[in-house]
Amino acid sequence: MFKILKKHKKSKARLGLIKTSHGVIHTPAFFPVATKATVKSLTPDDIKEIGFEAILANTYHLYLQPGHKIVKKMGGLHKFMNWSGPITTDSGGFQVFSLGAGFDQNIGKVLKDDNVKNHNIHTGKLAKVDNDGVNFTSHLDGSLHRFTPEISIKIQEDLGADIIFTFDECTSPLVDYDYTKKSMERTHRWAERCLKAKKNKKQFLFGIVQGGLFKDLRIDSAKFIGQLNFDGFGIGGSFGKGEMKKTIDWVIPCLPEDKPRHLLGIGYLKDIKEAVKRGIDLFDCVYPTRLARHGTFLTNKGELNIFKAVYKIDKKPIMKNCDCYTCRNFSKAYIQHLFKSNEMLAGRLATYHNLSFMYKYMKKIREDIKVDR
Amino acid sequence: MFKILKKHKKSKARLGLIKTSHGVIHTPAFFPVATKATVKSLTPDDIKEIGFEAILANTYHLYLQPGHKIVKKMGGLHKFMNWSGPITTDSGGFQVFSLGAGFDQNIGKVLKDDNVKNHNIHTGKLAKVDNDGVNFTSHLDGSLHRFTPEISIKIQEDLGADIIFTFDECTSPLVDYDYTKKSMERTHRWAERCLKAKKNKKQFLFGIVQGGLFKDLRIDSAKFIGQLNFDGFGIGGSFGKGEMKKTIDWVIPCLPEDKPRHLLGIGYLKDIKEAVKRGIDLFDCVYPTRLARHGTFLTNKGELNIFKAVYKIDKKPIMKNCDCYTCRNFSKAYIQHLFKSNEMLAGRLATYHNLSFMYKYMKKIREDIKVDR
Repeated sequence: MFKILKKHKKSKARLGLIKTSHGVIHTPAFFPVATKATVKSLTPDDIKEIGFEAILANTYHLYLQPGHKIVKKMGGLHKFMNWSGPITTDSGGFQVFSLGAGFDQNIGKVLKDDNVKNHNIHTGKLAKVDNDGVNFTSHLDGSLHRFTPEISIKIQEDLGADIIFTFDECTSPLVDYDYTKKSMERTHRWAERCLKAKKNKKQFLFGIVQGGLFKDLRIDSAKFIGQLNFDGFGIGGSFGKGEMKKTIDWVIPCLPEDKPRHLLGIGYLKDIKEAVKRGIDLFDCVYPTRLARHGTFLTNKGELNIFKAVYKIDKKPIMKNCDCYTCRNFSKAYIQHLFKSNEMLAGRLATYHNLSFMYKYMKKIREDIKVDR
Repeated sequence: MFKILKKHKKSKARLGLIKTSHGVIHTPAFFPVATKATVKSLTPDDIKEIGFEAILANTYHLYLQPGHKIVKKMGGLHKFMNWSGPITTDSGGFQVFSLGAGFDQNIGKVLKDDNVKNHNIHTGKLAKVDNDGVNFTSHLDGSLHRFTPEISIKIQEDLGADIIFTFDECTSPLVDYDYTKKSMERTHRWAERCLKAKKNKKQFLFGIVQGGLFKDLRIDSAKFIGQLNFDGFGIGGSFGKGEMKKTIDWVIPCLPEDKPRHLLGIGYLKDIKEAVKRGIDLFDCVYPTRLARHGTFLTNKGELNIFKAVYKIDKKPIMKNCDCYTCRNFSKAYIQHLFKSNEMLAGRLATYHNLSFMYKYMKKIREDIKVDR
């Protein structure tokens, strides 16, 4: 399913092609996040028009709303949301982590507060992990649920994405060595159970490497997951600042070269560039779309906050020479007005621009690999 | 500027054409409302794609945000919002009324509660009318403002719409004869002042007929406004239930036949049909777009509430044989999911469908007039 088209001469970056039953993905690629089967504010046609080949949806969210059984009855995620290209679903492990230890510690994909104390690390408010799976409370209505590796695979088979992930425990960067090791070993057992549980032969299953911030654990995890019969690999975990590069450098040499590698949930531009150089092929992140909804635009001169007073009568587009729909048609002044007025069009135009920027950013990276830049 | 192409044989309906410096409007026509220089959730290209030739924006709202001076600096409303077709702006009179007596009485364009008592009818909470103009409080930040006929025209000239309206006092259907008469006479004096104040020759100025629910006043008003040198006419006022048809029948015979007539703020389907039969050419209303944002869809079988349980696994589109983007691409089940999840795409898809429905409804009316159906 994965073909390396070219290796970069000056780094570990590779140009590749993933073939799925819903089309191809040119790598390195960024997947826009369609959490609940919609990239917020945009239609599938918008996503196609921007250039993206594939998107990522969230198993946890779709399980709760509208429910995987509904999606299955509707013919699967592709038909349900009318996206004919490749889809990836995560396993729900990260979201459950967010409800658990991550919830208490205010940790998302990246450590938000360096001063958070190492308290109650193993007991989250809304999720409890045991050796067999996780009990959690829905963030929507407080109802109780349970995910196990088998349940996660079943849900992902019902959703019908092209690439699915093993159910893992995503550990906090604040937990100690012993807990991280114990959790990693559990994640490994769960990975084997996911492989065993999977029935749908058209779906590719990616295993997830954990191991926290500890070199030996990351290497152990990459070796263990890497030797299992997965179609590709995810690198999971919530990184402390500056830990990402090191982690990738430990993990990549232990993974088979001929399979794609997805750095889960990472999407800052500089992080993407560094990760590609180190051998990462796939990315997903809510960063560009979330930023957009708050009025922050990605540009070749850095982030642009549309609320700045100087933009009040600025006739120029968000970014000079940008050929996206938003920049071809609207001024900063108009977009500021839309944001200040809480108009629905604001988020739509901003999301379109930011995703367009991300697409072109990845395209440029692919071109650079091609010519060994 | 206005040409009657054909008169209906069985009613007072007319097929017409308005030529503005930004293009033509085939009448009878419905204007989607772009309150703050945006039809909520849609781009100007969407509006064009649906088929609409013209839109209506609100002077009151744009005066407050971003301000008419900003819009003028940006090259006027057309350039500001990137809509190249004809634009109409109302005068702000109705919005100021909504802040005044209408605010106390919970009255919008149509009387919402028949049991509202006739209290404090002449003193609104946020607006006070005097003979020269209106003082009002911004609903956004509580700041104090004043509109006079001259100020309203100046603002509308700065905004630069193709069709603008005289500043009027829109009286409540609950006020008595004496107040309605006094107010109507004031509106007449304001109409003359607007005509005098207007400088921009490219803009068409429409006079507004008032007179409340009283036959003699409506006739007086239509005769008075009708003999002034306006390019067209608006019929204003907030109607009690069932009063609309009568009012139109009183007014229309007193207006010049060769000028277009706009029934301000009315947009229910059955009202439009009745009004067209009685000689109305133009309509605007937030009804289809507001309804859309609440999950109610216009269909040829009446209004459809997408939240109904039966639609949870309904693979069919909102309306059979509808060729709009929403119906061509998405199922009721998916759209229900978007609404239940508060997804931004929900309002966008619904607005697109409802406006598409309105456009085709008006197109059918025009075709019916053509063949005397």
